[in-house]
Amino acid sequence: MTFPTPAPGRVPRARDSVEGLPGSRIREVANAALGRDDVLPFWFGESDEPTPAPVREAAAASLAAGETFYSHNLGLPALREAIAAYMAGLHPAVGAERIAVTSGGVNALMVAMQALVDPGDEVVAVVPLWPNLTAQAQILGARVRRFALRSDSDRPQDGWRLDLDGLLAAITPATRVLLLNAPNNPTGWTLDAQQQAALLAHCRATGTWIVADEVYERVYFGPGRAVGAPVAAPSFLDLGAPDDRLVVVHSFSKSFLMTGWRLGWMVLPPALVPAVGKLLEFNTSCAPVFVQRAGIAALGLGEALVAEVTGRLRLCRDTLLPLLAATPRVQVATPAGGMYAFFRVDGEADSLALAKRLVAEAGLGLAPGVAFGDEGEGWLRWCFASRDPARLEEGVRRLRAGLGL
Amino acid sequence: MTFPTPAPGRVPRARDSVEGLPGSRIREVANAALGRDDVLPFWFGESDEPTPAPVREAAAASLAAGETFYSHNLGLPALREAIAAYMAGLHPAVGAERIAVTSGGVNALMVAMQALVDPGDEVVAVVPLWPNLTAQAQILGARVRRFALRSDSDRPQDGWRLDLDGLLAAITPATRVLLLNAPNNPTGWTLDAQQQAALLAHCRATGTWIVADEVYERVYFGPGRAVGAPVAAPSFLDLGAPDDRLVVVHSFSKSFLMTGWRLGWMVLPPALVPAVGKLLEFNTSCAPVFVQRAGIAALGLGEALVAEVTGRLRLCRDTLLPLLAATPRVQVATPAGGMYAFFRVDGEADSLALAKRLVAEAGLGLAPGVAFGDEGEGWLRWCFASRDPARLEEGVRRLRAGLGL
Repeated sequence: MTFPTPAPGRVPRARDSVEGLPGSRIREVANAALGRDDVLPFWFGESDEPTPAPVREAAAASLAAGETFYSHNLGLPALREAIAAYMAGLHPAVGAERIAVTSGGVNALMVAMQALVDPGDEVVAVVPLWPNLTAQAQILGARVRRFALRSDSDRPQDGWRLDLDGLLAAITPATRVLLLNAPNNPTGWTLDAQQQAALLAHCRATGTWIVADEVYERVYFGPGRAVGAPVAAPSFLDLGAPDDRLVVVHSFSKSFLMTGWRLGWMVLPPALVPAVGKLLEFNTSCAPVFVQRAGIAALGLGEALVAEVTGRLRLCRDTLLPLLAATPRVQVATPAGGMYAFFRVDGEADSLALAKRLVAEAGLGLAPGVAFGDEGEGWLRWCFASRDPARLEEGVRRLRAGLGL
Repeated sequence: MTFPTPAPGRVPRARDSVEGLPGSRIREVANAALGRDDVLPFWFGESDEPTPAPVREAAAASLAAGETFYSHNLGLPALREAIAAYMAGLHPAVGAERIAVTSGGVNALMVAMQALVDPGDEVVAVVPLWPNLTAQAQILGARVRRFALRSDSDRPQDGWRLDLDGLLAAITPATRVLLLNAPNNPTGWTLDAQQQAALLAHCRATGTWIVADEVYERVYFGPGRAVGAPVAAPSFLDLGAPDDRLVVVHSFSKSFLMTGWRLGWMVLPPALVPAVGKLLEFNTSCAPVFVQRAGIAALGLGEALVAEVTGRLRLCRDTLLPLLAATPRVQVATPAGGMYAFFRVDGEADSLALAKRLVAEAGLGLAPGVAFGDEGEGWLRWCFASRDPARLEEGVRRLRAGLGL
């Protein structure tokens, strides 16, 4: 057999839809700092604090005991039970049989997309948004429609708002999935319970799945719940029924200081669990047992650990935000949730150029808003998760120097 | 707005293409043994031996040092260098810049599919085959064409053979990906260098990608290489050029006794590396640093560890196969690679029923051949990776009892 010879010098490429996915603009800024040890980094979404020792020790004990074999696709029963008990302290109880353990929150979101999205399906995403979520939908061949949060250009200090009626009008029976991340990375915007109720009712009518990335649930500074109740942002789990088309995604990364462990979970309708179990087999097969043991230990530390982490994050927020707000040319709203300050600088329209300039000239590492979509252009994201809030004060000094103030 | 109300009682479902993926028939057999501790299991593809202590200790040391943060999408530079050096001991040198570290071999294969396969693309898979590979292609919306290895029904003891001319004819310019797993799970079939050369030349002409799952490369009992050279099955890496459309997938699971760690890698054309880096970000972001440190330690043990593992596997093979071959009604070929005996029992056409009966009546846990596609129906797979070969002898006693011999 003979076939036409491929053009000489033709370089092998991934498929166009993957080649066309934007690379991380955050890494592009971080790469500009390679080889320098004098840059203060606030670009990635993680604390500079290692995982608490008892959690690390639980993994080491599991390793010492030889727990190095394959495990259940959906996670160790003991971890699923512990997660269910933890969730029951925050929301109406969800049985362990509805919990799937994943290799990180991002893995949970990818598996959810694989479960739900056929090529050509319509996915509506509320943006600006952590770029992985929309990229996953594109990898599955979805048509992504972006629905933008609004920031009043005259009063950005008022923060980002959802045009609820506009979003409801954008979701039709042709919409397979609504993608939401609230508390939101990068803006700090959160959904309130009334908005969630309206969205849930509407999506019940249209048959649309809600994929809710609620990984910042515990990093919430908004109106409180009942006195003495653990702090948590409003959640679709407070409203949903088991058979709703609702997937809620969680992670150990943020509130348990476990970013590098790659451990997360999702809460599923019972009927979706078998399909997700299969997909987990085809993606990573399982999370390592010793990592899952660490998750059990983290949940065992419970509210003491979460309260310490979120208390620190509140202190960080309350250190950084007034300093930013008092900086000339800077416009910023105090976020109600999440661990980011999202701000604008008067006269700076190109966030990537500004972020690179701040690295080069001021030794300050921030994420450019355009990393979260065109809707974030002109903004910068500052992750304020820090062991030592004085790091944030030094960062603001560098920002002022970088802006020539 | 009003929309037609979804039919009452309609249960939320995954998309049809995912609901339609077969669940694991191996787990179906294993589930039949739940609650019993008297079953001798040989159904899963892993040894009963834990990871060597120095490897576990390397992970524990990394945890103690607080290495609990996000890492590079493509893997730690030190691990990529160590893998490149390891591969250079087996094949023509491959630079570390062509290595991507993944969360297990299965994760590498899923990411490769995401990089290469558009909805509707044709994927040709040589079968019987580990079912995850074809499932991944289906999740991406590919049309999977199965090309069956042949076993002479009169002489199954001669093993499985590839009709090379038939496979070449099946691969046309319309074929986006050729999926191969050799040494093969479940049959033990291996490719020889001449077949690889013919396939590579043909796929260069058709513009077809070869995705080669070579995770059993070191578990090879076939004709040797140069005297004193480390044992390895023939590999596409012995033949390929950097710009070939070739992705070779590897894992720490089998030859380093690290199944539960979820650590693997792939060797890529340089031009594909950026796209794969993005996809890793969107799938699991990175492998945990402490897991990667364990990988570095495993490679540091080097040929001593691999020789011990593969020597044990050879002993296991040479224990089990003669016993199976001497068992009345059993027809089996001695595998040239991999860690499985794949055999038929005269008069037993339904492998799932037979496997369940052997669990129930003989306390013997085997994998049904139909788990690997219809082409495996009528066969059983026995994983012979065992710390103690006497376990295999006891298994054969149970098989004989189960068959009423």
